[in-house]
Amino acid sequence: MAQGTFPNNGQGGLLLTLEDVMSGGSNWYNLQPENKYTQWWGNTPVETTADEVKELLTGKTLVTVNRLNEIAGEKVAVNGHNVLLPYNKKPIAQIRSGKKRLQIDWEQGSVVWSQDIPEGADHQDFCQESKHLAYTIQGNLYVKTATGETLQVSKDGSTDDSNNIVYGQSVHRDEFGISKGTFWSPDGQLLAFYRMDQSMVAGYPQVDITKRIAGVTMDKYPMAGETSHQVKVGIFDVRSRKTTWLQLIGASDDYHTNLSWAPDGKSLYVFELNRDQNDMRLVAYNTSTGKLSKQLLQETHDKYVEPMHGLEFLPWDASKAIMQSRRDGWNHLYLLDVATGTAEQLTAGEYEVQQFVGFNQKAMSILYLANESDPRRSCLYSLNLKTRRTTLLGADDGVHSASLSEDGTMVIDRYSSPTVPRSINLISTQPTRGRRPNLVVNILTAKDPWQEKGYKIPEITSGSIKAADGVTDLYYRMVKPVDFDPAKKYPTVVYVYGGPHAHNVDARWHWCLRGWEAYMATKGYLLFILDNRGSEWRGREFEQATFRHLGEEEMKDQMEGVKYLKSLPYVDSARMGVHGWSYGGFMTTNLMCTYPDVFKVGVAGGPVIDWKYYEVMYGERYMDTPQQNPEGYERCSLLGKAKNLKGRLQIIFGYNDPTCVPQHTLSFIRACEDAGTQPDLFTYPGDGHNMFGRDQVHLHERITRYFDDFLAPVGR
Amino acid sequence: MAQGTFPNNGQGGLLLTLEDVMSGGSNWYNLQPENKYTQWWGNTPVETTADEVKELLTGKTLVTVNRLNEIAGEKVAVNGHNVLLPYNKKPIAQIRSGKKRLQIDWEQGSVVWSQDIPEGADHQDFCQESKHLAYTIQGNLYVKTATGETLQVSKDGSTDDSNNIVYGQSVHRDEFGISKGTFWSPDGQLLAFYRMDQSMVAGYPQVDITKRIAGVTMDKYPMAGETSHQVKVGIFDVRSRKTTWLQLIGASDDYHTNLSWAPDGKSLYVFELNRDQNDMRLVAYNTSTGKLSKQLLQETHDKYVEPMHGLEFLPWDASKAIMQSRRDGWNHLYLLDVATGTAEQLTAGEYEVQQFVGFNQKAMSILYLANESDPRRSCLYSLNLKTRRTTLLGADDGVHSASLSEDGTMVIDRYSSPTVPRSINLISTQPTRGRRPNLVVNILTAKDPWQEKGYKIPEITSGSIKAADGVTDLYYRMVKPVDFDPAKKYPTVVYVYGGPHAHNVDARWHWCLRGWEAYMATKGYLLFILDNRGSEWRGREFEQATFRHLGEEEMKDQMEGVKYLKSLPYVDSARMGVHGWSYGGFMTTNLMCTYPDVFKVGVAGGPVIDWKYYEVMYGERYMDTPQQNPEGYERCSLLGKAKNLKGRLQIIFGYNDPTCVPQHTLSFIRACEDAGTQPDLFTYPGDGHNMFGRDQVHLHERITRYFDDFLAPVGR
Repeated sequence: MAQGTFPNNGQGGLLLTLEDVMSGGSNWYNLQPENKYTQWWGNTPVETTADEVKELLTGKTLVTVNRLNEIAGEKVAVNGHNVLLPYNKKPIAQIRSGKKRLQIDWEQGSVVWSQDIPEGADHQDFCQESKHLAYTIQGNLYVKTATGETLQVSKDGSTDDSNNIVYGQSVHRDEFGISKGTFWSPDGQLLAFYRMDQSMVAGYPQVDITKRIAGVTMDKYPMAGETSHQVKVGIFDVRSRKTTWLQLIGASDDYHTNLSWAPDGKSLYVFELNRDQNDMRLVAYNTSTGKLSKQLLQETHDKYVEPMHGLEFLPWDASKAIMQSRRDGWNHLYLLDVATGTAEQLTAGEYEVQQFVGFNQKAMSILYLANESDPRRSCLYSLNLKTRRTTLLGADDGVHSASLSEDGTMVIDRYSSPTVPRSINLISTQPTRGRRPNLVVNILTAKDPWQEKGYKIPEITSGSIKAADGVTDLYYRMVKPVDFDPAKKYPTVVYVYGGPHAHNVDARWHWCLRGWEAYMATKGYLLFILDNRGSEWRGREFEQATFRHLGEEEMKDQMEGVKYLKSLPYVDSARMGVHGWSYGGFMTTNLMCTYPDVFKVGVAGGPVIDWKYYEVMYGERYMDTPQQNPEGYERCSLLGKAKNLKGRLQIIFGYNDPTCVPQHTLSFIRACEDAGTQPDLFTYPGDGHNMFGRDQVHLHERITRYFDDFLAPVGR
Repeated sequence: MAQGTFPNNGQGGLLLTLEDVMSGGSNWYNLQPENKYTQWWGNTPVETTADEVKELLTGKTLVTVNRLNEIAGEKVAVNGHNVLLPYNKKPIAQIRSGKKRLQIDWEQGSVVWSQDIPEGADHQDFCQESKHLAYTIQGNLYVKTATGETLQVSKDGSTDDSNNIVYGQSVHRDEFGISKGTFWSPDGQLLAFYRMDQSMVAGYPQVDITKRIAGVTMDKYPMAGETSHQVKVGIFDVRSRKTTWLQLIGASDDYHTNLSWAPDGKSLYVFELNRDQNDMRLVAYNTSTGKLSKQLLQETHDKYVEPMHGLEFLPWDASKAIMQSRRDGWNHLYLLDVATGTAEQLTAGEYEVQQFVGFNQKAMSILYLANESDPRRSCLYSLNLKTRRTTLLGADDGVHSASLSEDGTMVIDRYSSPTVPRSINLISTQPTRGRRPNLVVNILTAKDPWQEKGYKIPEITSGSIKAADGVTDLYYRMVKPVDFDPAKKYPTVVYVYGGPHAHNVDARWHWCLRGWEAYMATKGYLLFILDNRGSEWRGREFEQATFRHLGEEEMKDQMEGVKYLKSLPYVDSARMGVHGWSYGGFMTTNLMCTYPDVFKVGVAGGPVIDWKYYEVMYGERYMDTPQQNPEGYERCSLLGKAKNLKGRLQIIFGYNDPTCVPQHTLSFIRACEDAGTQPDLFTYPGDGHNMFGRDQVHLHERITRYFDDFLAPVGR
């Protein structure tokens, strides 16, 4: 059943510690796989180091950091990595220092352009084309032009800490693929931006204990079924200094996502989704009048539709754009005719396109990542739009990321696979008449740093079992204790996430092993990680199996994992624990309370406890509103299960978690107190939904100690 | 060394559980010592039961609850305990039901007076003399007259939840003996009241997680060294409906305490204390003009003066009043001449008067409680003001409380002693020519309910050791495990409070054993409780040894207790734990961090962590301000000691603790995280500084489990 065993060939004598395996640990950096920092100078690949920028292939120095600082007359570049070469073949370096952005001609030896960055500027969005900078101060939006003029785009943004009205920031709580609030037109003279009115949204009190007397901020947090915020889209014309408001269709609390500029800047395309998230329309607005010009298409579904990607217009044909849709059950690429609204399917099959990478303009092909050959992988493909031929680029293994040259004929392909910590390759994306494209050059293949430095490495395998539906394959990762002896019985910890838009098992280095798992294996634990139904990259049906009853199918699948574990002679089924964070904290708490005789110890981090305390956007997508689905909310709430707790469960939360607000954890604690059960609790004041730096080390010492205390207290 | 051993004569077979020993436990009530409810009908002692009110000595029924409800025509009395007989020998029963207060003549069979209680009336203060009712609604003060008229005393009290201005409520955070904010004149026609302006005081954010979306209240909390509130005193004349404001002396944030009416109502005496709490003046104000009429006396001290008691005017001589003062180092009674301000000392010696009980008007004597014969006791004495002869009334053992008849010639004396769970006696307070007064009648001597019901009772002893100063006697209580075997070694838990105005060891039943200690003894732990220097009823020097460096002397004394424990063969010094709440939480955390190799396990509840987060009134008395005593605040803060934590320390706090605000605990947790140490944590959402009811049971199950987990994990 187990496939793709990672060879346990690193049986050195050193034992991994948390300082080695956590990113906040003191030795973490030293144990990272070797790396090279690369970028494109137009169509020339370059490498940056601490001291210089050089041609990747020849190693020839283009310019040194010292030289740039000398030309600038001050220290503007800290190292080579923050130097950009924006213009193909031109000897221009662009640097952003703390206070300004400047362009230096290293041949002429002069600063050829510079722009001050206003103090306190937030949400900066620099347009490389026009060199205008959009930014916010408090709730208002500003533009600093290429020539240094400051333009105030909005006036009624909040200037107190109410955050009632905010401009130029991400909206809809970063759902639907939204991560920012300003969108420059192709020529950089028009700026589309969001305006979000949150005055009608309740605030969640976040207490800051670091002040002399603890203070409070009311963080706008629309909870499921409650009043949501209202978003508008404006277009600011830098030349006329006028704003045109789009006359958006739909209800005031609809979602307006994936804003996409037409190449000529005359239209802005918006994916409009109703609050119920089951009716999505792609519409075009006239950017000079703000009026709706046309509805291109509509997608509905009885569960939900989730637009995650904007349009990518063909560089050689402005009438067509690449669009992504899950309408056939899997995320695929479509060629949209913006005149007719017809969308021609480009990719198909029981796999998912994971990322659109870009275009090869010469070959008229598109590049994308997909998990076609194995759900755990993310490999690079090109699809020629003329021939419709699909070509695998680079290794058919691992998880890739790709960076295209300006003309798209070359790609820097980075990946890791279960046995390869890091590989960087420069690959041609040009057609090769049916043969696999030549690998131009292998830039780096890193060795296993743990093995090199003499650490004991646990055996890490991945395989599949059947889901609770009896049909679906689910993938797992298993981490065996170091010095594994199949005749022994080991305490076993299930690590779980289990929610949508994420997965734990993929074909990265060590099967995507988390450092803490290696540490636990060093201490003698067996770890097991299974991606249940509901998780990522397995298609719509796989994900939507959980609709309106989050947690239930996911747990059934995890219990199939437990069944498999119990079948293994070296798993001590009397010593099983579970750990997860966020959705995984929800799963952990749920598993502890639903299967109190299976799991002896659990550690749940930042858990959802009752979906009514979660936000509108994510929560209502999967659960509908509490008003629409009261029975589902009740069944999926852990408050009623608090009474079932038998084992040892520690819940840990960021005291200022703005995502799974503390009301989740605290309500569960209260429910346990009322029911007479005894969970344990910990918090990190000042931290949010996750812990970073030294707190991450502290946290994992804490998690480990809990399993040491209660799951495997004496000499394993 | 051990004295007063409680005989371990209850070796029945039943083991005490938390349900038996905690006041929130399901069997607690059944295991309470037998009781009788008594009160005075003028000079006649009566007993109340669920059904009736009867003469205590004859058992003759005065009136039944049913009869009272029948006369009222509705259910106004729930049981006999809420029936008062306010007028000596008159057949008048006074009852307060939820909605009204009424007087019923049970002989005439009619309601002779009634007064509606306004809806939402808070801080009710009913004047028995005038039958006027003072009360507050939100921030304002009202009077409902005996005839039913509603008078609004104040207008500018806060009617929102800001609490900026409040009338008729306790001020100065209940310090200095203040527990209320309205004070009726002897004839009940003038009402002295407090007005507190807190608008300049910072609010502490208290988060309510029980709301649909967590809400926040800003609780006015003046922290040490920060801006404090400002208090005024007004006098409202019910007849003229006019308010006269006292023209208070001193600074705006001075303390105005122990308001005392002259018998004729023409003067109001106020103990005025500066914010630094080292300069106290007793002043008289003219109640018709509000002007200062005279300063009677002044008390200063280089550490602090703490006025805790008002004046008690002699019923037979309005020119003299009983006053309490610690000016000679011990709290004693003084006879104050209000014309001259001279104060004649009435009691003296190295003991403390603990309570002024009242007057015997016939004998012209005063009754009081004092610990003259043993610091752990509180016994009843009379002092004849004519003969100056002091007489012990009742048993010279135990801790007494006393309720005087109207003329003061009889007292209902209740006490418990180490071997007596409860004794109620009716005693004459009349002089007996040098002989001990006759005990009129023993009303009840309860048997040990644990013994009667067949529970195993641990051996409980009390004794003394020397303090760290080598001179002072400190008293302890020791609780041995049930089935104690002196050849074994027992895990030992020190329970500690240690702060001023409280003590743990006194001569009550079982030496004041707390139920949890009995439970722990049942589980095989030895418990030790020592009242260190700084604690109550041991005189000024004993208390003030800790001035400006709280925690240090207290810990030294506790370590003397540890030294004593280590000298005992049956104490396992490798398994020592510590537990305490509030000041005891401060001590516990402090001991864990200061003596990390002594205490293996600690549980600290609602701790002070840094005195700068504590309130102005209490905090500045013992520590001065952070500005005056920066070095002391730094040394006494536990934040800098977080790095020393080695053992297992669980901190538990009420999530809405308004006394030791959560900033204490959370700052310590943050400090531990930053220092890389690992405390444990728990909280009770919705609870304040202490837990009650079922939460108390849950809490003690939790505390016990922690010691079971880490101090004595395997078969003791």
